Amino acid sequence: MANEAWNARPDRVKIGLLGGGQLGTMLLAAAIDLNLDVQAMDDDANAPAAKFNKDFIYASIRDEKAVYEAFWGKELVTIEIENVAVGALDQLERAGVLVYPQPRVLDVIKDKYLQKSFYVQHGIPTSGFRLLAQSEDFAELAKQLPFVQKLRSGGYDGKGVKVLKTTLDLAEMLPGESFAEDLVAIDKELCVIVVRGQDGALETYPVVESIYHPEANMVDYLLCPAQIKEEVAKAAAALAKKVAEALGIVGLLAVELFLDMEGNMLVNEVAPRPHNTGHHTIELNQTSQYHNHWRALLGLPLGSTKQAGLAAMVNIVGADGHNGVAKYIGLAQCLAQEGIFVHLYGKHETRPFRKMGHVTIAGDDQKELERRIAFVKATLKVEAY
Amino acid sequence: MANEAWNARPDRVKIGLLGGGQLGTMLLAAAIDLNLDVQAMDDDANAPAAKFNKDFIYASIRDEKAVYEAFWGKELVTIEIENVAVGALDQLERAGVLVYPQPRVLDVIKDKYLQKSFYVQHGIPTSGFRLLAQSEDFAELAKQLPFVQKLRSGGYDGKGVKVLKTTLDLAEMLPGESFAEDLVAIDKELCVIVVRGQDGALETYPVVESIYHPEANMVDYLLCPAQIKEEVAKAAAALAKKVAEALGIVGLLAVELFLDMEGNMLVNEVAPRPHNTGHHTIELNQTSQYHNHWRALLGLPLGSTKQAGLAAMVNIVGADGHNGVAKYIGLAQCLAQEGIFVHLYGKHETRPFRKMGHVTIAGDDQKELERRIAFVKATLKVEAY
Repeated sequence: MANEAWNARPDRVKIGLLGGGQLGTMLLAAAIDLNLDVQAMDDDANAPAAKFNKDFIYASIRDEKAVYEAFWGKELVTIEIENVAVGALDQLERAGVLVYPQPRVLDVIKDKYLQKSFYVQHGIPTSGFRLLAQSEDFAELAKQLPFVQKLRSGGYDGKGVKVLKTTLDLAEMLPGESFAEDLVAIDKELCVIVVRGQDGALETYPVVESIYHPEANMVDYLLCPAQIKEEVAKAAAALAKKVAEALGIVGLLAVELFLDMEGNMLVNEVAPRPHNTGHHTIELNQTSQYHNHWRALLGLPLGSTKQAGLAAMVNIVGADGHNGVAKYIGLAQCLAQEGIFVHLYGKHETRPFRKMGHVTIAGDDQKELERRIAFVKATLKVEAY
Repeated sequence: MANEAWNARPDRVKIGLLGGGQLGTMLLAAAIDLNLDVQAMDDDANAPAAKFNKDFIYASIRDEKAVYEAFWGKELVTIEIENVAVGALDQLERAGVLVYPQPRVLDVIKDKYLQKSFYVQHGIPTSGFRLLAQSEDFAELAKQLPFVQKLRSGGYDGKGVKVLKTTLDLAEMLPGESFAEDLVAIDKELCVIVVRGQDGALETYPVVESIYHPEANMVDYLLCPAQIKEEVAKAAAALAKKVAEALGIVGLLAVELFLDMEGNMLVNEVAPRPHNTGHHTIELNQTSQYHNHWRALLGLPLGSTKQAGLAAMVNIVGADGHNGVAKYIGLAQCLAQEGIFVHLYGKHETRPFRKMGHVTIAGDDQKELERRIAFVKATLKVEAY
């Protein structure tokens, strides 16, 4: 437990943050409100957070020795990405540093097969799955089609996941330790961000829904609150809380859910940190996900997650065919509109589909929201010089 | 004028910021949204902004040589306090750096006698005033009582101002170059924050009113919108715009106004930067004063200043009798409440009445707002260990 005295000096608790990407940068923005003493570390010397951190550390967050040495002497350590040197975090925890999320939680979550097994052990609904051997028989696999192949670890932003439908697809299976998941007939993809305090207090944010583009078959934007019945929203929140309690996590947990065509709710996977589906909480909720993460970690009371109006979030990704120094097109036009909140991550180089920023869009009704979403998508682009 | 190309790369414009106090810190928080490249400079190595700035410069912002050398090579320079090395800013401007607010504007504002004279020249209503000679005749001064003595420069947060009512008070006159101002029979003290773009575009924030404690005769809290008639609010906004246009300032200008007992509106003084009376815009307005300052300076469109609901702001000052390392009392209790947004500035040492933080308070109605204000004032204290 955090020293009770932290409440009297939150600005002097020595905090280490693994990762200085956009999530780390938004954690720093929230840290400014209480003038928290956060030192971030990232593999990239020009990571988005670097500009906003006095003693930013440029070193590999997957290097056990570097992490241990950098954060020995801190009072509290946290992450913005789960693919870090968990062994070092474990050592730091043994040395008396508070590490949230806890290393044991990261161990379960980082290995997606262990994560799925954890759900089964705790009676948390999830799709069926089984380990794939490296030497799996082709004919045997063909019989199991369709299924989803997932790498046990290292997957990120849709990488490490392959939907296999035909025998031809089998030729494109991912190399590495993996497992097969039943293909779910998905009605809606939902996400609930839950935050859990040191004292076990829980708060959930309104349910977020991924809205797919009718033709392109990719996520078009995120919508919050999700267009679901009240009882479905309640069930989603309850399930998210159940996962957070089962893990015993302190801090944020984003719980990704599938609602299938029969109305069953299944946990897809979780992320033990601020999440893409909670960006809009910066402008539209009483307490942003980033603020509530710090509150949980410092042993301060969690803040209200109430949202004002409707929210959408559009990721601004690098335009296809553009590689090189980033150039923003249409920024001024977007800033001139009400209800549109632009965030740029300051990444020097753009690449096709790289996350370069996001836009939170507010609206009083669905029509207004959709007009603004369409405007942003037609206007704001990231190209290369 | 800013290079048009800045719109395409706001994150790579090299920006210098003079001052790293709480206002500079909140400017940095707003800078994170577009990942602006800001380097701050302050006389205090542990200034509030230092933690959130990669290459923070510890040097005197009143040292002409230090300022010129630190910010030579920047594309844009701004301030969070007007008491800086204006000569160096003038040199930087001649060398092609965009300096906003402009050094010529700072020259007028820094010398309060010049500032008053400027109002007279431009037909802007202000109270009567006249220079005081160092060798002023006592009997002559006594005849002019009551009046307000103001130092021409260096005044800050109520310092450098003396209300003189009796001949006894004359013995306590401030040393230094000063002038006398007519004592105004004040009904209300108002403030309008206006922001002016490079293209002359103007936006004003809703009028803020200083609410005095009925017994203590000091400002109890700030209230926004002010409790004034619509036409008075309109007149205040128009007057603020007139001052900004007369000065030709680019960026924020806080215009402090007196509404006298006869309903006359007089300009008291102005500040060419983010202002204490605009803290609440962080949580409650579409675009905060800090965001709009950067937009104006970068040649980006100004954002909507619309406010949601009622706002109050309470400064958290060091408790009387307490000197030393700061300790926050009642922080957790305040964070547990809805509509209460705590900002701590992270100043290591507290002193009686030093500004250590502020709290923005939101409410749907006056009753709710007042309950929350009373709670914050009774609960949150800064004492020394």
